[in-house]
Amino acid sequence: MIFCRRLRNKWQELLHDEQLKRRIYVIIFESDTPMGKLFDVALIGFIVLSILVVIAESIKSWDSVIGPYLRMSEYIFTFFFTLEYVLRLYCSPKPRRYALSFFGIVDLLSTLPFYIGWIFGTARYLLVIRTFRLIRVFRVFKLFDFLNEGHLLLRSLVYSSRKIIVFFLFVLIMVISIGTLMYMIEGQCEDSAFNNIPNSIYWAIVTMTTVGYGDITPETPLGRFLSAVVMLLGYTIIAVPTGIVSASMIQEQKRRSSQKCPHCGRSEHEEGASFCKYCGGRLESGDK
Amino acid sequence: MIFCRRLRNKWQELLHDEQLKRRIYVIIFESDTPMGKLFDVALIGFIVLSILVVIAESIKSWDSVIGPYLRMSEYIFTFFFTLEYVLRLYCSPKPRRYALSFFGIVDLLSTLPFYIGWIFGTARYLLVIRTFRLIRVFRVFKLFDFLNEGHLLLRSLVYSSRKIIVFFLFVLIMVISIGTLMYMIEGQCEDSAFNNIPNSIYWAIVTMTTVGYGDITPETPLGRFLSAVVMLLGYTIIAVPTGIVSASMIQEQKRRSSQKCPHCGRSEHEEGASFCKYCGGRLESGDK
Amino acid sequence: MIFCRRLRNKWQELLHDEQLKRRIYVIIFESDTPMGKLFDVALIGFIVLSILVVIAESIKSWDSVIGPYLRMSEYIFTFFFTLEYVLRLYCSPKPRRYALSFFGIVDLLSTLPFYIGWIFGTARYLLVIRTFRLIRVFRVFKLFDFLNEGHLLLRSLVYSSRKIIVFFLFVLIMVISIGTLMYMIEGQCEDSAFNNIPNSIYWAIVTMTTVGYGDITPETPLGRFLSAVVMLLGYTIIAVPTGIVSASMIQEQKRRSSQKCPHCGRSEHEEGASFCKYCGGRLESGDK
Amino acid sequence: MIFCRRLRNKWQELLHDEQLKRRIYVIIFESDTPMGKLFDVALIGFIVLSILVVIAESIKSWDSVIGPYLRMSEYIFTFFFTLEYVLRLYCSPKPRRYALSFFGIVDLLSTLPFYIGWIFGTARYLLVIRTFRLIRVFRVFKLFDFLNEGHLLLRSLVYSSRKIIVFFLFVLIMVISIGTLMYMIEGQCEDSAFNNIPNSIYWAIVTMTTVGYGDITPETPLGRFLSAVVMLLGYTIIAVPTGIVSASMIQEQKRRSSQKCPHCGRSEHEEGASFCKYCGGRLESGDK
Repeated sequence: MIFCRRLRNKWQELLHDEQLKRRIYVIIFESDTPMGKLFDVALIGFIVLSILVVIAESIKSWDSVIGPYLRMSEYIFTFFFTLEYVLRLYCSPKPRRYALSFFGIVDLLSTLPFYIGWIFGTARYLLVIRTFRLIRVFRVFKLFDFLNEGHLLLRSLVYSSRKIIVFFLFVLIMVISIGTLMYMIEGQCEDSAFNNIPNSIYWAIVTMTTVGYGDITPETPLGRFLSAVVMLLGYTIIAVPTGIVSASMIQEQKRRSSQKCPHCGRSEHEEGASFCKYCGGRLESGDK
Repeated sequence: MIFCRRLRNKWQELLHDEQLKRRIYVIIFESDTPMGKLFDVALIGFIVLSILVVIAESIKSWDSVIGPYLRMSEYIFTFFFTLEYVLRLYCSPKPRRYALSFFGIVDLLSTLPFYIGWIFGTARYLLVIRTFRLIRVFRVFKLFDFLNEGHLLLRSLVYSSRKIIVFFLFVLIMVISIGTLMYMIEGQCEDSAFNNIPNSIYWAIVTMTTVGYGDITPETPLGRFLSAVVMLLGYTIIAVPTGIVSASMIQEQKRRSSQKCPHCGRSEHEEGASFCKYCGGRLESGDK
Repeated sequence: MIFCRRLRNKWQELLHDEQLKRRIYVIIFESDTPMGKLFDVALIGFIVLSILVVIAESIKSWDSVIGPYLRMSEYIFTFFFTLEYVLRLYCSPKPRRYALSFFGIVDLLSTLPFYIGWIFGTARYLLVIRTFRLIRVFRVFKLFDFLNEGHLLLRSLVYSSRKIIVFFLFVLIMVISIGTLMYMIEGQCEDSAFNNIPNSIYWAIVTMTTVGYGDITPETPLGRFLSAVVMLLGYTIIAVPTGIVSASMIQEQKRRSSQKCPHCGRSEHEEGASFCKYCGGRLESGDK
Repeated sequence: MIFCRRLRNKWQELLHDEQLKRRIYVIIFESDTPMGKLFDVALIGFIVLSILVVIAESIKSWDSVIGPYLRMSEYIFTFFFTLEYVLRLYCSPKPRRYALSFFGIVDLLSTLPFYIGWIFGTARYLLVIRTFRLIRVFRVFKLFDFLNEGHLLLRSLVYSSRKIIVFFLFVLIMVISIGTLMYMIEGQCEDSAFNNIPNSIYWAIVTMTTVGYGDITPETPLGRFLSAVVMLLGYTIIAVPTGIVSASMIQEQKRRSSQKCPHCGRSEHEEGASFCKYCGGRLESGDK
């Protein structure tokens, strides 16, 4: 009984040991210390490995040879990622905020499918649940967290998002109209691949984006003429998103280079510069 | 008789009741009042729903299950859109101008096919006429009306339309020449898919726009060499429309940012700004 | 005899009648007078019609119905184009220079195949010579002559031609290396479509330009991996020619807008402006 | 014996004859003298010819006719390239540095496979070793050495390499996620081409880069919907690398034009100018 109480006390202590929490927080959440850096690199390695395991599991011909090893590494990875998730919750100053953040949810989703498959482990539903386990691939999104350069790209896209949305709406209208027209032209013949409007719209998207699988192709002269028009249209309007993004990137670059040095007040710094080239003062970097 | 005359008087009154007209006009044509906004949102919802119904009708396997419901909702949608069209004509100060405008014609076209199918509704021609009813998909164009951002894209395209027309003429010449050459090279073999010049031109367009269905592919070494040249050509000249649109968008952006504030006279505002960042005065927005 | 000499004299007169020459020259070569404009429009109409006839002739199923009419219109078109060619030679002040110019050669080539097919008109070789007659499609290049806007596009391409040549050389090296690698990987299996290096290079071009016919596709895992790398490479380097042309077009636009008005000396005119927006003086248009 | 010693002495002399070394160095490594230019042009011709021989050797149907000639020219080319490699090593002031440079290794690799095939010339392994000989195609990379214009393109790519790497990482994450999702959706049916995740990822890359072979295509409505989304995504994000490269090229161009003349101090020279347009002084060309 005394032992039990002691254990509980120890546990209570551990749960509220602010110094330990802080030390773990520095290792797990930050990457400035050598330990933190090591942890991050090891985590990336683990994530990549676990993704490779998921991919390898899907190859049926490998299953008889290395299947058991893959399943075992499965257990190990899930154990580590669960531990990591619990530690993150434990050491985070605001656990709820972390749990509801994008990466909190991704961290949870990357371990959960394994347990669901383990508890409701009847033979029949196992296969369906295994597909859920594949969501662990999204763990890979964590990789993105470690890079700051991505922000410029994201900002350029966000900056021009309104124009891109309008563009997509326009494409949607085009694609629905063209798909319906092609259904009217090609769909009357029997055995035509344009057998309903959704398939015709699918064809219109395949054609307009210049993907061109060739699983659905026009057979009638009129259908071929219309699809030629659609291709040339797609070929031209591919210029629109490119133009939007190019223009916003050049804008972004100009803003960066016209940024004034807080020390000497001069501008026109090179893109990517962190220090003023005139006085050596640190620039207020836009994307950090 | 008296009742009849009263009804006619009432009708005459209604037809010339300028206040009612104005009130309906504000709801239907404008979107600044709460009622006008509600009307617009409801209309968008209706348009999207009616398009989904048209698309669903084309799926043959669904017909036995939800076919009757789809046809009934068809009646309801057509009734509402007809009512809307009549009200627009009624309350518009210049009904003829509305009727002949782009959206007036689209509004008419989106209800008309239903009535045509209803009047000439004999069993034999039903199928052909039903395809006409599919034109109701053009209803989707109405969605375009509700967005102002699209004007910038359209202006950029109109602005560079002359260059794009020349570019297309150039592409047309290339495509006809290449199609004919390929017919000369590949068309001599029997069972070749290049069996006439229109098909060869279709192939040239499919190749040059980098769509590449693969329904028509060269078989002879010379044909493969020529098509490789065509691909590299298409790969390079895809840059031309992109360059045109990019350049005109950057130009557009610069014009916007060099727009002078009518209050303090300073320029170089951010793109999309509605107020001067120096004095807070409202800018004369270019695309509103 | 006297009649004969008279005819010769008349002919001599006609051949040296400078006023008639000049009048015809104005009609045929220039398009400022109403007659000249009419001639140009009629010529374009004739060229388009004659191309449509060539295209229609290649459709075998139409031959039994409208074949004779097509062949007859063939005679008429050839007669008119020959007459036009002779008149151009006649009224041109420097006939040799015209005959050796690009359009002089195109004009000749667009009538010549017909006569070759007429003189050596044996049944057996007729088919081969008919393909030569298809070169008349190049007549279409004349269409290009009537447009001045094309010069800007051409100049942008010429301006960046050195960079584009280096880019193509780079693509060529890549395509040969990748084609050979794929032949080493995929070509060992029997029945592989990668049966020799030229076919592998053809595949590399089809893939890199994102055309993707699908007539030759990798089957082995290693081949699929390499082709995925090639696709991503092609996807990225498609940006290079676009970037080159965009940059040179923006440059071109800037040069145009920085052009000084010869009357008031101010610059920053809109692109495409023919008159100074400050003083109304005519600008020295760059691309005329 | 005396003769032998003399030969050795002669050899020793030759090996240390600095004047001869220098003369050969000027011919082989430089291209300013007429002899050096001639050597370079002849070398390019030889490289192109030897590549054509390798390509021709792979065409099986030609083997019986010109096979022996190809194999003989093989011997001659290898002799010349070996001689060239030895001479380069001999006359280079720092032979080790050359041997370890990019072109030193390419030069070695372009002759080595022939000797390996000659020494281990048993009938059985011959075929495998022959594929190694195909590496001589990399000889073609030498072609790149003779062009300076390529540096601008390379610099533009290097300059924006960080952004492009992040972009590729982003594409990789997308492609793995989408591939896994499609495996979950389409892979359940038997005989589906989406039979494992690597194949699904391969499909995702084929689709996203708009290549679209059509060897793997979705069959289910949900799969088609997802692939339509992927296409539109790929269609939009194709704009990102283009935008990156365009922006960096425009930047590069601006830097060039803002380069100051070392003689008169004025800037804003045309791109590609070698002399100042104000004072005629030579500009310090950026990419030479």
